[in-house]
Amino acid sequence: MDKVKVAIVGFGTIGSGVARVLLEHGDRIARHAGRAVELAHVIDTDLARPRNVTLPPGILSDDLSRVIGDPEVKAVVELIGGTGIAREVVRKLLESGKDVVTANKALLAEHGPELFETARRLGRSIAFEASVGGGIPIITGIGQCLSANQIQSIHAILNGTSNFILTEMEQHGAEYAAAVAEAQRLGYAEANPSMDVDGSDAAQKLAILAQLAFGVRVRWQDIPRIGIDTVQVADLRYAHELDYHVKLLAVAELGAEGLDLYVSPTLVRHDTPLAEVRGAYNAIRVVGDVVGRVFFHGLGAGQNPTASAVVADLIDTVVGRTAITFRTLDLWSAVRPARVSARDPAKIPGRFYLRFQVDDQLGVMAEVAGALGKHGISIASLIQHEAEDGAHGAVPMVIMTHEAHEGDIRHAVETIQKLPFVHPNVVRLRVRD
Amino acid sequence: MDKVKVAIVGFGTIGSGVARVLLEHGDRIARHAGRAVELAHVIDTDLARPRNVTLPPGILSDDLSRVIGDPEVKAVVELIGGTGIAREVVRKLLESGKDVVTANKALLAEHGPELFETARRLGRSIAFEASVGGGIPIITGIGQCLSANQIQSIHAILNGTSNFILTEMEQHGAEYAAAVAEAQRLGYAEANPSMDVDGSDAAQKLAILAQLAFGVRVRWQDIPRIGIDTVQVADLRYAHELDYHVKLLAVAELGAEGLDLYVSPTLVRHDTPLAEVRGAYNAIRVVGDVVGRVFFHGLGAGQNPTASAVVADLIDTVVGRTAITFRTLDLWSAVRPARVSARDPAKIPGRFYLRFQVDDQLGVMAEVAGALGKHGISIASLIQHEAEDGAHGAVPMVIMTHEAHEGDIRHAVETIQKLPFVHPNVVRLRVRD
Repeated sequence: MDKVKVAIVGFGTIGSGVARVLLEHGDRIARHAGRAVELAHVIDTDLARPRNVTLPPGILSDDLSRVIGDPEVKAVVELIGGTGIAREVVRKLLESGKDVVTANKALLAEHGPELFETARRLGRSIAFEASVGGGIPIITGIGQCLSANQIQSIHAILNGTSNFILTEMEQHGAEYAAAVAEAQRLGYAEANPSMDVDGSDAAQKLAILAQLAFGVRVRWQDIPRIGIDTVQVADLRYAHELDYHVKLLAVAELGAEGLDLYVSPTLVRHDTPLAEVRGAYNAIRVVGDVVGRVFFHGLGAGQNPTASAVVADLIDTVVGRTAITFRTLDLWSAVRPARVSARDPAKIPGRFYLRFQVDDQLGVMAEVAGALGKHGISIASLIQHEAEDGAHGAVPMVIMTHEAHEGDIRHAVETIQKLPFVHPNVVRLRVRD
Repeated sequence: MDKVKVAIVGFGTIGSGVARVLLEHGDRIARHAGRAVELAHVIDTDLARPRNVTLPPGILSDDLSRVIGDPEVKAVVELIGGTGIAREVVRKLLESGKDVVTANKALLAEHGPELFETARRLGRSIAFEASVGGGIPIITGIGQCLSANQIQSIHAILNGTSNFILTEMEQHGAEYAAAVAEAQRLGYAEANPSMDVDGSDAAQKLAILAQLAFGVRVRWQDIPRIGIDTVQVADLRYAHELDYHVKLLAVAELGAEGLDLYVSPTLVRHDTPLAEVRGAYNAIRVVGDVVGRVFFHGLGAGQNPTASAVVADLIDTVVGRTAITFRTLDLWSAVRPARVSARDPAKIPGRFYLRFQVDDQLGVMAEVAGALGKHGISIASLIQHEAEDGAHGAVPMVIMTHEAHEGDIRHAVETIQKLPFVHPNVVRLRVRD
């Protein structure tokens, strides 16, 4: 049987998982790859830290040149993470004739155009199934399996940490900070979870999907995003009263005026598949103009689900499928004109959920409604409850709007924030019907 | 730009859909295929029937030799259906050097080994994404994207007609016959829906998945199957009381003693993703030993969803991905030893739901329980209601068993059927927790 050598750069949690699959399941990988796949090198700066896999002797090293200089190594997995060293390493790997497999969404969202151009110029490929949705085959799903379709919309839960935290808050009535602590205790959230909970991670993944599904090149920093760090348990309760669950949705939706892209905690009707996604799971709802609605659901992060996607990419690369896909998809190509462009975020329409804390006094409702009306926003429904304990006389006012534009909502909220009887931290979520 | 010619044999509903996508969306298909894909021939015996697509002049013909004899045609879509002419046509196409794309599950379930062997011998390929799950990319999902995994189980709703009928019965309290009529009126069921409602269609698809995911070669006729034609609206009501929905599940589950395969209406807990699949949708829940649980959901039949899968296969074939996948998967190969084998159906374990109609008299319960006990089956719960109108004094007795073997259940039911106070047509469903 033929043999091909591969290497891993970055021996952390995911790297250990990939190494373990390659070492423990050589049989099935050889079967799918049509040849033996030998793990020849594992590179990391930390040689001492214990991992949950035992490597064959002589494989682990902190010297990248062992990979670069081994002409038998055809494909290399980059699992360093981040956008600094990883970018340099991927460039070097491509230049030394290696195909690259990566799970690094930050790297692609930041430097996708440069790295893909480099790979194209050198006749190499980059595979990145694991960068979005973990073990869910969404990159192949959209890039290959739905290729007869113009994708019309993507509604996705792409950050498992946020979904876990929201589920904790909803099921156990935990406040945000307590739910974050629980997520950290269970390993679902990092010590500094800010990229997860502020919507940045979801925006990076959405930027990749926007390029894949719509050919739209967008800086992830330019995608309007609100994270779950603005959501309180009270919002989940109000949503529940209205028959919704709150989910952190990453949305790409094609309209006559361009592509709407945003990340926002969103009220999703309780009996829809997206609303029922619980815990650390991810889900992606894709609508194509031929296939209709297709829904994918699975673990979006973690050692094993991510390793599953990385090893599938390795197999695809070794057998030659990736080279074909890389060439035909031609992602982030400067030559290919964009077919659509992202719409000005201020113009993105939708219904909104607003929660204000206001002083319990006469005329408040009239002033808030007036401020909304001045920005062309009309109220669909309103919930007002009595003051909660510890609210210092403030009462919550929850407003569901009719369809309005993001920009108008933002301006209206700014105006309302300045009213003397409105407390800080207005909560603004989107509503999906 | 390069060009490749393709053809369609079988110009029915799906064939028209495929033709329309190829003709109307040439741009996007050329983009994904890296070359123009020209529909050169459409073959059907019926040249007169109106279709919802207008073909370019000179393309439609009833003469297969126009395809066979055109060396520029590289890939041909077989959409004749059935196992007679279709088998002959696929063989001829392969022998004339064409790669084949098919949506024909019956053909593969019946003649997969022979046709795949022929294709291998001739260096050709067969793609069949559309044969299972319609627009859901489950063949690529399992065969390519989950290739790092040993698949451990598949629980799937593979027959949209049955799911539509069950949903109608559940949501509108329609009896089975009325729900079938409604499905026929809306085009979800054929004039003779027996292959759909008796579980045969699902068994054929399951046989394909069993080969793909487990390398198990099984005749679909040997897969034990119960259809939804045994289910009455009363069963859905009792299931509901117990917090279940009834779904026609096709199951493949790997255990230490082999692969369990069966098709059965099954009580599925109400808040699980499979239970929430409504109408004509299909869904497939796959568990892999690395990825964990992945869930796919979408339209499992119909002109457009099926055309989406067929055209994706055509693109895969034209760009060369199918040739690689066909070679590495090596399906239905006589050379490759089976890794597992299907377990004797009588040994398949599970919990069961049994509904008897019994005469309302003393001692009935004791005799039924005794008969079950004699076959080693213990009762987990029991529902007994008063006689319904028109039941002629018969009362329903609903029993949920603890885990038991299929064979024991079958024998026990046979015994109970013979008791003088038990009416015909005992309902036997499976229960999934």
